[in-house]
Amino acid sequence: MSRVIEITELALRDAHQSLLATRMALDDMTPVCEDIDNAGYWSVECWGGATFDSCIRFLNEDPWERLRIFRKLLPKSRLQMLLRGQNLLGYRHYEDGVVERFVEKAASNGMDVFRIFDALNDVRNLKTSIDAVKKTGKHAQGTICYTISPLHTVAAFVEMAERLQAMGCDSICIKDMAGLLKPQPAYDLVKGIKEKCGEQMLVHVHTHATTGVTLVSLMKAIEAGCDIVDTAISSLSLGPGHNPTESLVEMLEGTGYETRLDKARVLRVSNHFASIRPRYREFFSEFTGVDTEIFKSQIPGGMISNMESQLKGQGAADRLQEVLLEVPNVRKDAGYPPLVTPSSQIVGSQAVFNVLMGKYKVMTGEFVDLMLGYYGSTLGEKNPEVLKKAEAQAKKPPITCRPADLLKPEWEQLSAAAHALEGNNGSDEDVLTYAMFPQVAPKFFKTRAEGRKNLGKDPSRKSVESKPPAAPGSGQERRAKATYLITLNGQEHRVTVLPER
Amino acid sequence: MSRVIEITELALRDAHQSLLATRMALDDMTPVCEDIDNAGYWSVECWGGATFDSCIRFLNEDPWERLRIFRKLLPKSRLQMLLRGQNLLGYRHYEDGVVERFVEKAASNGMDVFRIFDALNDVRNLKTSIDAVKKTGKHAQGTICYTISPLHTVAAFVEMAERLQAMGCDSICIKDMAGLLKPQPAYDLVKGIKEKCGEQMLVHVHTHATTGVTLVSLMKAIEAGCDIVDTAISSLSLGPGHNPTESLVEMLEGTGYETRLDKARVLRVSNHFASIRPRYREFFSEFTGVDTEIFKSQIPGGMISNMESQLKGQGAADRLQEVLLEVPNVRKDAGYPPLVTPSSQIVGSQAVFNVLMGKYKVMTGEFVDLMLGYYGSTLGEKNPEVLKKAEAQAKKPPITCRPADLLKPEWEQLSAAAHALEGNNGSDEDVLTYAMFPQVAPKFFKTRAEGRKNLGKDPSRKSVESKPPAAPGSGQERRAKATYLITLNGQEHRVTVLPER
Repeated sequence: MSRVIEITELALRDAHQSLLATRMALDDMTPVCEDIDNAGYWSVECWGGATFDSCIRFLNEDPWERLRIFRKLLPKSRLQMLLRGQNLLGYRHYEDGVVERFVEKAASNGMDVFRIFDALNDVRNLKTSIDAVKKTGKHAQGTICYTISPLHTVAAFVEMAERLQAMGCDSICIKDMAGLLKPQPAYDLVKGIKEKCGEQMLVHVHTHATTGVTLVSLMKAIEAGCDIVDTAISSLSLGPGHNPTESLVEMLEGTGYETRLDKARVLRVSNHFASIRPRYREFFSEFTGVDTEIFKSQIPGGMISNMESQLKGQGAADRLQEVLLEVPNVRKDAGYPPLVTPSSQIVGSQAVFNVLMGKYKVMTGEFVDLMLGYYGSTLGEKNPEVLKKAEAQAKKPPITCRPADLLKPEWEQLSAAAHALEGNNGSDEDVLTYAMFPQVAPKFFKTRAEGRKNLGKDPSRKSVESKPPAAPGSGQERRAKATYLITLNGQEHRVTVLPER
Repeated sequence: MSRVIEITELALRDAHQSLLATRMALDDMTPVCEDIDNAGYWSVECWGGATFDSCIRFLNEDPWERLRIFRKLLPKSRLQMLLRGQNLLGYRHYEDGVVERFVEKAASNGMDVFRIFDALNDVRNLKTSIDAVKKTGKHAQGTICYTISPLHTVAAFVEMAERLQAMGCDSICIKDMAGLLKPQPAYDLVKGIKEKCGEQMLVHVHTHATTGVTLVSLMKAIEAGCDIVDTAISSLSLGPGHNPTESLVEMLEGTGYETRLDKARVLRVSNHFASIRPRYREFFSEFTGVDTEIFKSQIPGGMISNMESQLKGQGAADRLQEVLLEVPNVRKDAGYPPLVTPSSQIVGSQAVFNVLMGKYKVMTGEFVDLMLGYYGSTLGEKNPEVLKKAEAQAKKPPITCRPADLLKPEWEQLSAAAHALEGNNGSDEDVLTYAMFPQVAPKFFKTRAEGRKNLGKDPSRKSVESKPPAAPGSGQERRAKATYLITLNGQEHRVTVLPER
């Protein structure tokens, strides 16, 4: 008797986010939904992450409508999304009422499985979302962001899993966003979670293929008892993306494990995306091979190309090596945050500034907030000297409470501001869109009626505008002296810089 | 205490044969030899396979001189080559005296490890080479061509390993040329060989990355006791090539296995080839992803593209699917040969002819020879009806002896013919070059003095001619009615067709 290993297909979200800068149009996904729906996946990741942003910024597409269409076209499937906990799909902390409203609306529009993570692994930032998901009766998946540091031991991660379990999570995800999860730690981690949380606790492993080793890690995770793994259809796999679905299926033959996937359906899914993918050539990730240097620098590939372009912008492209060596120092000073949106950008930008302008001579506003606890707590202690500098610069105290505890109810305000915008349709969904992307939503509401864009270059279609809009102005809550706009994996991030005083 | 896993680096031979159509020039390899020599590899594969052919056909380079240069630049390393048993590096069976002479010369010019295989796994075709290697005191590696069929069980392969051991082989190689070796069979096979041949018998595993699963297979092979694995430096890896060296190293961390590789040296090797590779863009393999359809068709990717171009040449490109379905039938009729040079071309071409002209209405001369035993014996029985047709067409009887037993001593003749050629330097090496490539050697001898070509497109170098020469005339021993020139993985093959009578 073989044990069934369940699969989550990433093609509709993380695969094109990682490989095609999140630009895949809904119209290039709908034709294959029937095959996906009948292929035997445990779930279909299709929403959240950077797709929401990309929809309104680049595709003139209502992300809520995208969700409803997926719900309709994937009637048999669990729909799955990636949610950044208290940040929702935006880049700041939201007050609990907004978080609850978002989860309610995502659930009522069709979402089934909420994979909820916090960039710092601060479980307090997950609590409101987990509770909200439980209230809707949907599946709350608590997420461990996998990273490597002297403090990130298997025991520490397992303890985090126990906390997620205690918070009511239906499953635990080990999220390896940079391909750093090696086979032995994968085995030990899954084993540890199963031992401490019980065999019945579903363990779900997400890896990227970047370093070339993670299909082996999935094998080891499975041997240790992992229930569900994430893969992407082969035609949208590898490089900075994920391990190929078909390879996972084939790899298990004769091992005592098997998937439920219908190979004929899977082949059709693969053929579909193989035919669609070339249309997005201009968005292709340049990196398609394997990069094991990440193990040394522990810097995700996308972060490196981002720092590269920051350096180029400053005429200092030749200083990348110094920056790569500085990143681990900055990360240590900040208490070893995992490097994932937004901590990866915050740490990366600060490393750039340290190299260009001297060590902590200039601190970004975001880095100051990170040091002072405004993103949450980190596993490690902060460097006290850097902390002192940050405090002096920010003129605000460090905090130890949950960041969102400082926020006042904001739904009414957000609602009023959103409803005042031209083209707003009066729904709570539109309020949430505005709440997450206040700089992008106004233009989107205005142009929404023009219909969805498809940036894929089809010979039979006219070429469409694909350049991102100009950089939005800096937010009003920042005393910014300089603003940098950073694009990373298809997401734009604003980094504000406060000069040292 | 970790067990040391030894590594063979493929960058200098199979990696560029698989990814760059065997076109890498010696001058793009020599600068990195010092790093390779000091990186801690068990051996460096750098000769044989298609490189000999490519040297004289495309690069105007003396392959024997290439070997001597490698010997000089890699003084600490075991040099390794791939040898097609009784076929040497050519495409026909050679008389034993020629085989012995070849091995002697390869050894005296610096070769250390001879990986010897036969496309049909007929060990009689390996015997002369193995004996010759043993006589030189060098390392004779007996090779099992891994394939999948109802007859190719683990037990059958293990039995072959025992035969190779009995023949005096110093190690056993499991050669998976199409990426078909899945994790569980890899484990079972290595385990079986170790059990039957003894723990002391070195087991060496060679896989291609084509299907995406074989790094997992290497892990399982290692767990089963495998001593040495083949990998290619990451910048020359994946796609139809091999698993990345660096990923293998990283994957083992914490597992109780480790390599002896110096990561700093390995990084320099990788950076070197990353900088060189783009020069060979025009030779890049088009396929760079993962293809698991091979498991169904069991047809190597290179063979498919070859059949595709044959079909296109006949204006029948739309019939590929029929051909893909026909290949397994032809293979079964021929007694389930593994599909590797030259059996892959022979079976593939016959499948094309079966589809285009009716089942065995037209048989290629090579297919007839395969059916009649002139390439050796296969594990399976031949289809008696097809055998009868082949016999009728060929007007010669089937044989059961070792094919080379029918050959008369030919060294004197070959020697006389070679020495008569313009530019021949009178060496035994030149005779061997002529013996293996009688159509290409004459031109090569004539132009040798002009020096090595480098087909890599360097902006600082002038573009050079890179088209293969026109098809050579058909050989005199064939009563050919039509000749097809087939290019597969950078090797050209002549297929002659005899119409049915």
